[in-house]
Amino acid sequence: MRLVTYAGASGPRPGAVVGDRLLDLGGFAGSVAGLLADAAALSAAEAAVAASDPSSLPVLDESVLLAPVTPGKILCLGYNYRGHVPDGVDPTANDPEYPDVFVKTPNTLAGPNEPVAIPRGATDVDYEGEVAVVIGRRAQRVALEDALDHVGGYTILNDVSDRAWQRRQSQWALGKCSDGFAPLGPWVVTPDELGDPQDLLVEVVRDGVVTVSQSTSTTIFSVAYVIHHLSQVLTLEPGDIVSTGTPQKLPAAQDVHRPLAPGDAVTVRISGIGELTTTFVGSSDAGQEASA
Amino acid sequence: MRLVTYAGASGPRPGAVVGDRLLDLGGFAGSVAGLLADAAALSAAEAAVAASDPSSLPVLDESVLLAPVTPGKILCLGYNYRGHVPDGVDPTANDPEYPDVFVKTPNTLAGPNEPVAIPRGATDVDYEGEVAVVIGRRAQRVALEDALDHVGGYTILNDVSDRAWQRRQSQWALGKCSDGFAPLGPWVVTPDELGDPQDLLVEVVRDGVVTVSQSTSTTIFSVAYVIHHLSQVLTLEPGDIVSTGTPQKLPAAQDVHRPLAPGDAVTVRISGIGELTTTFVGSSDAGQEASA
Repeated sequence: MRLVTYAGASGPRPGAVVGDRLLDLGGFAGSVAGLLADAAALSAAEAAVAASDPSSLPVLDESVLLAPVTPGKILCLGYNYRGHVPDGVDPTANDPEYPDVFVKTPNTLAGPNEPVAIPRGATDVDYEGEVAVVIGRRAQRVALEDALDHVGGYTILNDVSDRAWQRRQSQWALGKCSDGFAPLGPWVVTPDELGDPQDLLVEVVRDGVVTVSQSTSTTIFSVAYVIHHLSQVLTLEPGDIVSTGTPQKLPAAQDVHRPLAPGDAVTVRISGIGELTTTFVGSSDAGQEASA
Repeated sequence: MRLVTYAGASGPRPGAVVGDRLLDLGGFAGSVAGLLADAAALSAAEAAVAASDPSSLPVLDESVLLAPVTPGKILCLGYNYRGHVPDGVDPTANDPEYPDVFVKTPNTLAGPNEPVAIPRGATDVDYEGEVAVVIGRRAQRVALEDALDHVGGYTILNDVSDRAWQRRQSQWALGKCSDGFAPLGPWVVTPDELGDPQDLLVEVVRDGVVTVSQSTSTTIFSVAYVIHHLSQVLTLEPGDIVSTGTPQKLPAAQDVHRPLAPGDAVTVRISGIGELTTTFVGSSDAGQEASA
């Protein structure tokens, strides 16, 4: 299934995308995270999707899509893709022993239709296209071989970063946690529909140019390993996001890279999931309030 | 006022400590954060406290106290107290230009009566006693001179850390974010009652020995500066916690320091606020569930 959260008349509701149509799933659970955490409700929703007649459903209006989940925590990996290595060199030679993990705070969450404000004064804002794992079942000290059982699905996260702030301290929080710096969506693809999470092509398109293109087969730490690993240290809850790191920009893109500016649009597209386009605006355009 | 969240018969409720008594404030707001964010409700609660007859109120049973707020985000400072410097040396000579900021995730929150589990296999768990600022009013790009207007009050946070995990990566998240690693409480003291936040004595008592004792007058970044600074980068919301860093352990305590172990108790006491005692237990004692 492709699970969405959409703006209903009386608030956010879970739904499924069936072809180009939208099937409401509010009768099965109050939220996508609630659905993923409840095996019986999830099975019933799957049956409803299978039994649905798309021609009787409303056409999906993507403008009503919200962030597919509201995560209690967003954990991100700092470095997880191997770069290109010359022939004869062991590609794993420089692998770190452990993933480098940081946190994005709840104020960073943005839906697939929300523009992201370049913070006032920020001069070096950048994008990172990432496969985001959505936790389905609570994960606490799970074995490696059981880890994928705790995955509810996969979506796309753009790990927007203010590189200037990121460089100013040892810890990256102020570079990673500006409001709206975690666009998420457009939907959660369940594992049965996605297939192998280590065989996805992650691409980023900026201004019509592909700047990132790399397979998740080149990650250092697999989704299963990351869930296993994190769950030894803390408890992952349904709806939590674990974002699996970004590939490096392609060399040609690195050569001409410039910071994001108002008016830019960045599309992250991942095979088997879909694409997430984020537009960037000036800080006064994004509805921020002056402090009282 | 000293504001608490306590376990009522039908769920958590806000209250005020009046002498040794408890005054319920559930009629004014649903939560302490809600009360702090609503100037009219806060004034009405203050009037109710002033008008109350302590002899008619129930004696405060501290065992019913919960974490005083449930923060959307917990932002912590990594290094904010100057150490001892010899006479003739400028104490500000080594001050960093910016605070080093990291995040503790929501699973770290623990109330003043909750024991904290030493995670299975953890060998180097440590404590840090800190003044925690509770945001009262939304703060977005606030001027330095207005910053304290956004503070709802002050409480105590023990920034529990797994030093081994903290050392294993560049980012500290896995060392800072184990379940229960942010005991908070016992109450929120409002600014009018506290006085100057840069004139508080922060002490930690472990096994009957004072291991930390330093005034907030020796911080590098004041509360006002930290709120101002953070609010340039992200929006602080009512109930958010900004923890202001820990003083170094006293030299004698550093010499004999050993990692926390099950059975240990650590008390953080801060003049004008109170004290927060946290007991540490083995991971199987803290009600953690095996993964399914």
